[in-house]
Amino acid sequence: MTRRFGTLEEEKVFKDPVHRYIHVRDELIWELIGTKEFQRLRRIRQLGTTFLTFHGAEHTRFNHSLGVYEIMRRMVENMEERENWDPEERLVCLSAALLHDIGHGPFSHSFEKVFHTDHEEWTREIILGDTEIKNVLLVMGEDFPKKVADVIAKTYENKLVVSLISSQIDADRMDYLLRDAFYTGVSYGQFDMERILRVMRPKEDQAVFKHSGMHAVEDYIMSRYQMYWQVYFHPVTRSAEVILSKILHRAKHLYSNKYKFKDKPKHFYSLFSGKITLEDYLKLDESVILYYFQEWQNEDDPILKDLCERFMSRRLFKYVECDPSIQMKVWPELIELFIKIGLDPNYYLVIDSSSDLPYDFYRPGEEEERLPIHLLMPNGDLRELSRESDVVEAISGKKRTDHKLYFAKDILEDQSTFPKEKQRILSLLIAQEG
Amino acid sequence: MTRRFGTLEEEKVFKDPVHRYIHVRDELIWELIGTKEFQRLRRIRQLGTTFLTFHGAEHTRFNHSLGVYEIMRRMVENMEERENWDPEERLVCLSAALLHDIGHGPFSHSFEKVFHTDHEEWTREIILGDTEIKNVLLVMGEDFPKKVADVIAKTYENKLVVSLISSQIDADRMDYLLRDAFYTGVSYGQFDMERILRVMRPKEDQAVFKHSGMHAVEDYIMSRYQMYWQVYFHPVTRSAEVILSKILHRAKHLYSNKYKFKDKPKHFYSLFSGKITLEDYLKLDESVILYYFQEWQNEDDPILKDLCERFMSRRLFKYVECDPSIQMKVWPELIELFIKIGLDPNYYLVIDSSSDLPYDFYRPGEEEERLPIHLLMPNGDLRELSRESDVVEAISGKKRTDHKLYFAKDILEDQSTFPKEKQRILSLLIAQEG
Amino acid sequence: MTRRFGTLEEEKVFKDPVHRYIHVRDELIWELIGTKEFQRLRRIRQLGTTFLTFHGAEHTRFNHSLGVYEIMRRMVENMEERENWDPEERLVCLSAALLHDIGHGPFSHSFEKVFHTDHEEWTREIILGDTEIKNVLLVMGEDFPKKVADVIAKTYENKLVVSLISSQIDADRMDYLLRDAFYTGVSYGQFDMERILRVMRPKEDQAVFKHSGMHAVEDYIMSRYQMYWQVYFHPVTRSAEVILSKILHRAKHLYSNKYKFKDKPKHFYSLFSGKITLEDYLKLDESVILYYFQEWQNEDDPILKDLCERFMSRRLFKYVECDPSIQMKVWPELIELFIKIGLDPNYYLVIDSSSDLPYDFYRPGEEEERLPIHLLMPNGDLRELSRESDVVEAISGKKRTDHKLYFAKDILEDQSTFPKEKQRILSLLIAQEG
Amino acid sequence: MTRRFGTLEEEKVFKDPVHRYIHVRDELIWELIGTKEFQRLRRIRQLGTTFLTFHGAEHTRFNHSLGVYEIMRRMVENMEERENWDPEERLVCLSAALLHDIGHGPFSHSFEKVFHTDHEEWTREIILGDTEIKNVLLVMGEDFPKKVADVIAKTYENKLVVSLISSQIDADRMDYLLRDAFYTGVSYGQFDMERILRVMRPKEDQAVFKHSGMHAVEDYIMSRYQMYWQVYFHPVTRSAEVILSKILHRAKHLYSNKYKFKDKPKHFYSLFSGKITLEDYLKLDESVILYYFQEWQNEDDPILKDLCERFMSRRLFKYVECDPSIQMKVWPELIELFIKIGLDPNYYLVIDSSSDLPYDFYRPGEEEERLPIHLLMPNGDLRELSRESDVVEAISGKKRTDHKLYFAKDILEDQSTFPKEKQRILSLLIAQEG
Repeated sequence: MTRRFGTLEEEKVFKDPVHRYIHVRDELIWELIGTKEFQRLRRIRQLGTTFLTFHGAEHTRFNHSLGVYEIMRRMVENMEERENWDPEERLVCLSAALLHDIGHGPFSHSFEKVFHTDHEEWTREIILGDTEIKNVLLVMGEDFPKKVADVIAKTYENKLVVSLISSQIDADRMDYLLRDAFYTGVSYGQFDMERILRVMRPKEDQAVFKHSGMHAVEDYIMSRYQMYWQVYFHPVTRSAEVILSKILHRAKHLYSNKYKFKDKPKHFYSLFSGKITLEDYLKLDESVILYYFQEWQNEDDPILKDLCERFMSRRLFKYVECDPSIQMKVWPELIELFIKIGLDPNYYLVIDSSSDLPYDFYRPGEEEERLPIHLLMPNGDLRELSRESDVVEAISGKKRTDHKLYFAKDILEDQSTFPKEKQRILSLLIAQEG
Repeated sequence: MTRRFGTLEEEKVFKDPVHRYIHVRDELIWELIGTKEFQRLRRIRQLGTTFLTFHGAEHTRFNHSLGVYEIMRRMVENMEERENWDPEERLVCLSAALLHDIGHGPFSHSFEKVFHTDHEEWTREIILGDTEIKNVLLVMGEDFPKKVADVIAKTYENKLVVSLISSQIDADRMDYLLRDAFYTGVSYGQFDMERILRVMRPKEDQAVFKHSGMHAVEDYIMSRYQMYWQVYFHPVTRSAEVILSKILHRAKHLYSNKYKFKDKPKHFYSLFSGKITLEDYLKLDESVILYYFQEWQNEDDPILKDLCERFMSRRLFKYVECDPSIQMKVWPELIELFIKIGLDPNYYLVIDSSSDLPYDFYRPGEEEERLPIHLLMPNGDLRELSRESDVVEAISGKKRTDHKLYFAKDILEDQSTFPKEKQRILSLLIAQEG
Repeated sequence: MTRRFGTLEEEKVFKDPVHRYIHVRDELIWELIGTKEFQRLRRIRQLGTTFLTFHGAEHTRFNHSLGVYEIMRRMVENMEERENWDPEERLVCLSAALLHDIGHGPFSHSFEKVFHTDHEEWTREIILGDTEIKNVLLVMGEDFPKKVADVIAKTYENKLVVSLISSQIDADRMDYLLRDAFYTGVSYGQFDMERILRVMRPKEDQAVFKHSGMHAVEDYIMSRYQMYWQVYFHPVTRSAEVILSKILHRAKHLYSNKYKFKDKPKHFYSLFSGKITLEDYLKLDESVILYYFQEWQNEDDPILKDLCERFMSRRLFKYVECDPSIQMKVWPELIELFIKIGLDPNYYLVIDSSSDLPYDFYRPGEEEERLPIHLLMPNGDLRELSRESDVVEAISGKKRTDHKLYFAKDILEDQSTFPKEKQRILSLLIAQEG
Repeated sequence: MTRRFGTLEEEKVFKDPVHRYIHVRDELIWELIGTKEFQRLRRIRQLGTTFLTFHGAEHTRFNHSLGVYEIMRRMVENMEERENWDPEERLVCLSAALLHDIGHGPFSHSFEKVFHTDHEEWTREIILGDTEIKNVLLVMGEDFPKKVADVIAKTYENKLVVSLISSQIDADRMDYLLRDAFYTGVSYGQFDMERILRVMRPKEDQAVFKHSGMHAVEDYIMSRYQMYWQVYFHPVTRSAEVILSKILHRAKHLYSNKYKFKDKPKHFYSLFSGKITLEDYLKLDESVILYYFQEWQNEDDPILKDLCERFMSRRLFKYVECDPSIQMKVWPELIELFIKIGLDPNYYLVIDSSSDLPYDFYRPGEEEERLPIHLLMPNGDLRELSRESDVVEAISGKKRTDHKLYFAKDILEDQSTFPKEKQRILSLLIAQEG
């Protein structure tokens, strides 16, 4: 039998602009960071196309994953002196925190929509499949990889452990709010993490928060709310997302129709056909995707070529707000006009909707149940957050949705062809905004 | 005659984590940012391989170029009320600031060493050649592109303008120190830019600084000094740089020797042959390079394959300090031993030297003359900085050089083959450190 | 006729930790800062007794007044290019911003409650009375002092100008939120002031905010909400406030009853008698008050002596939450018990209530009408903030009140005398918390 | 025998703007903070008259003392796992850190010069005399107060412990550089304390620093250097200091000459007579001093009155640089002219010199020996810092001195009396600057 991993002779530190330093004392964590699957996260941006809106947001999932690990490390350190905490769970927690995003591919959001991949499934495969990560985890015991995978999949028996990484206030969310705020440069994502960690207390099912720290938790919820509408759902980012999806759709469509690509898109074959192996999946990263997008700027298909040029040189679609019910009336006319002027409406007229539920109390039986945040009252009772906080109550359970209609305004404004039809389209679109 | 660019109807702003906001009022600047050559800078990291040492440093030259523009905008705003300033130069300055790095390719440092490209030459070609940028600049007048190119090339007649972008204290250096410190998370790069800008005064040949602001300038020089040794010359970054260069050398060598690549490296052909067109050059970015490095992990050539795996999974070389004179004695033996164990010393035993001259006073006739920084004394005289400042005096004109010997420690520590020879190599290497 | 003030030969700057630099170009402002009435603000803390809770909060009204001036300066700079803005108002605005707090005395809140002084009235007297400030203002014209006083009193004709200094989002509030957050060290008071200033537009009656900046305004309202409950109404600060008021009450009571003070409290005579001259008022500052408190530690009156010792050595009262209706029932018993054990309940059992209305829309006819914040919609319409923002709507018009009962727990816990009665008091008090 | 202090049931925290939180777990520390002698530090500013130059610098010694304690707490935490560290010293260290400035009085620098008090002696008296602090310390053992006093007096046997609070890089200096930079708003005082603490290693005589952290130590030395010349020796602060000293001199002189003060300066009697009791000393704080300065504005003595008005309303002296040797020549003439125009040169013409030795290596036998900073080399050797660092070498052992001549420029510029003599004085003074 081989030895298990122990403690590093000397602690390693990573300089991190968000948490100042990231501290690694466990050989296990050090080895996981060194695997090629984990290093691959350096080539996948944390915020997909957001860098086209906020130029500072060029950070990767590697960056974020270390941050989640560091927050978890501090959480566990705080927990270790408390009741309800099982010290055996320490390395499971740290590994799950580090690896929680390991299954993400390039521009996950769009890829998942177009190719029906599922990053959570891939996370599981990478942790349990034939990978360097699995081999490292195995050193800690035969069942260790499964434990880590179960925590990430939220099926782990110890629900407290699950809640630290997946709940309405967890290490993942705390890191991404702070980190994304830091890199985009917006001031909204700030909250007092140190205080939140200090008032956190382990309970059987989840971590709860001492009532005296309620305002720090409120502030975190508000940060989350602001970041969603200011950064994550920014209309320009969504425009880039729309174009990206349409590129993938077009490429898939062309492939299905036996189009001859100048440069064979071999990295996409298995995606197009829907049969992706782990090996294929791990080869995908944003460099590979951007390589193809650059190449496709030289393709003969005018739609693929145009969309790739748009993405690479950030010539995005413009948008109008739209009310889905009103819009239905003009839709047929719009489609007809687009076809008339030779613009395929499947690619050049796109509705995109975003919606956010900033905080939810528990409603058993609903599709995606989310455990509510509980406060620990001075008398030892637990109380659901929105019952104590006016501001959280105000935004609880309220889904806010926003619909936008994206289109290639530059083409429509080029009056050298079909001036009348284009004018009509523009006026129909502008009328949407009411 | 077409109209020239004017002022935007509404000022555009970019959120920037370093300068908070970047303000654009000129149509010219807005159009330049939108060109495909400028957008390409989004795919070239500002600090090359540094992200493998400081994971936060994933920012690109796009990010930095906007920052240099913003500093220049503030400089010009300050200058505009002063003597010696020609308002006609405003847009020349802003354009030069924005475009000063436009000629950079992927991992410039290594590429220039291996393929003898020169980013300054490419800058000139991009500004004066058949590009979107040239066409935008032309709107401002027939000679406008050349003016901008001349400023960047330091051949422009108005030396004051040149000094704002290329001197020992200019918009470029100020942005990169602040920005690289921000993204790496180190605290060394901080200095009081606002104060420096406030004490800056235009003189005929260069900008000078009021004596009352000397300490802010001193602090800037010290930041620069610290950043060089803490970040820019970090030995781990240099290790990645060494591997990167060796990959390029190997690929070129294989190409020259008619090696059959599995996937044709067509983006490299013109680099290998030394005849690069502007069109070819503009296709190069870090996505493309990383695409190939990923592919080359599957090549048959063991050296190319190994080096690419190392780079992609950050399995870098280790190093020892070495004194070039002492090292000469053991060099023949080392070479022999490397050959004996089957490791090509051309790729696996590399000396890398870094040296820095943190501040220099003017020494006419030397190879790279650098204009010294001058202080404006209360009585109107000018005085060279190091004559007033003890700390600057201390580091003036002193070139500091550091030599390191990089090698694949992991291979040498694998004792399954050639244990005796490897042991000998390791002991020779460790002895270098004295 | 004497000359009016003009522009300083060279701009003066103050280093400020909140706004980085405070810029002064106008002789008028420079002269106002130099008056002895303005310098007196250096001896009056911005947050009264808060430094006993947050030790960092030792900053003064001098500090804050410069900050409000600086924000106003930036506001006016932004306004100057817009419609609806009268450039003649510039110096009126800057002077009013600088002087808006000039009438504050030491620990204003408690002094006003006990001695019925009114800092707004004193502001008027200082600006219009026989002071250095009045003489400086007069240089700008006979009616200039009155203009400045009217702006601060909100009676000025130009309501836009009034709104910049007194509204739900003005230079005063913006500075104190940022500044108090900075000095206390809490993270709640942060918001993006730069963005708010950028989206501000002058209208006839008030400044409004472009809809695109709504989230920055929301964030400001939330900061305000958090700062009130986390800092301004902190129960420990209120405990110090309670003791301070009781000291003043006691001293006044003793004076009315011909008590012989060891050291004559001559600075208090006019306060005690209710006939305060401007000269007397200007002599009051926190040094003077603390001088007396220190002296009174040696007085014979046990209540005055004890309360002063408590204040000087921060031995504050403890508190329980109390519901005013429930509390009425036990009140008579408590009073009786206090008297029995020899503790005067007028000084040792105190109810303190705080309430806050974080944001209010306009309800004509109510006692303190506050102009609501308006958003400027893309089509030019104005819209009241809470109609657009969920979170602001949630807290609009909702007064939140909090009642606390303060008492000298240390005395009650000293069981060497009246153990039974004290035990009973403690159990009655603790029962309040339910 | 009574019990010793133990651990608090729940850790207490103070929100601190510099270190974010200050953590107190020990009852001993909590009790010390609550003593009246420690609370008195809230009424003594950390930087004396500096708030008249940098308005943000209103923080007190209370604020700083907590900060030094917190840094010491972290240092000890780091040490606890290392060799050479005696765990018994923990509470001695923490107490000494907290109390190291307890002997300071108001505006110490000037008071010590004029009245020959010595804050180090008073520190000893407060720790060992009849005080609340002594009583709290005694709980830890009969000899505990003396241990703490010895550490502060640098006579403690364990030199390592002494070095943590008094050396060229100690908890005291680290806190004040960071804190004073924070409150003044200057950017010079920043350095990476976290890194310095991480590379600190206990040795028998002192703490040393791992060579890998040399640059952080360098940066700290440079911060110190910059703060001295930018903040601590700022000429405007020194002007206020000059006036303050002259007020004290004048009051003492008047007292010696039986001058009848309108309001008896009883707090000063023992200072004037040179026989100060501990009780008298503890009554002195800045409120008391400012109370008298305010009163003295109404005295009949024109010099005392004028100087107090100047101090209270910040009407300071102006200055010229002066070379002490040249100045000697014109001194007699200046004195004569001052007397002629009726200005007492003892109060209105003052030379002030500042000098700083930013870093010193050990020179045995010199008057104030300072232990040099040592680096711990990879091979275990120790090496003095300036031998490894160019920049530190540059400023080592070099005393820099600056002489200024302060005078009441406003009086000299009032040409209504003695115009010729005043003109002559001004020209002599201006000529000093060469």
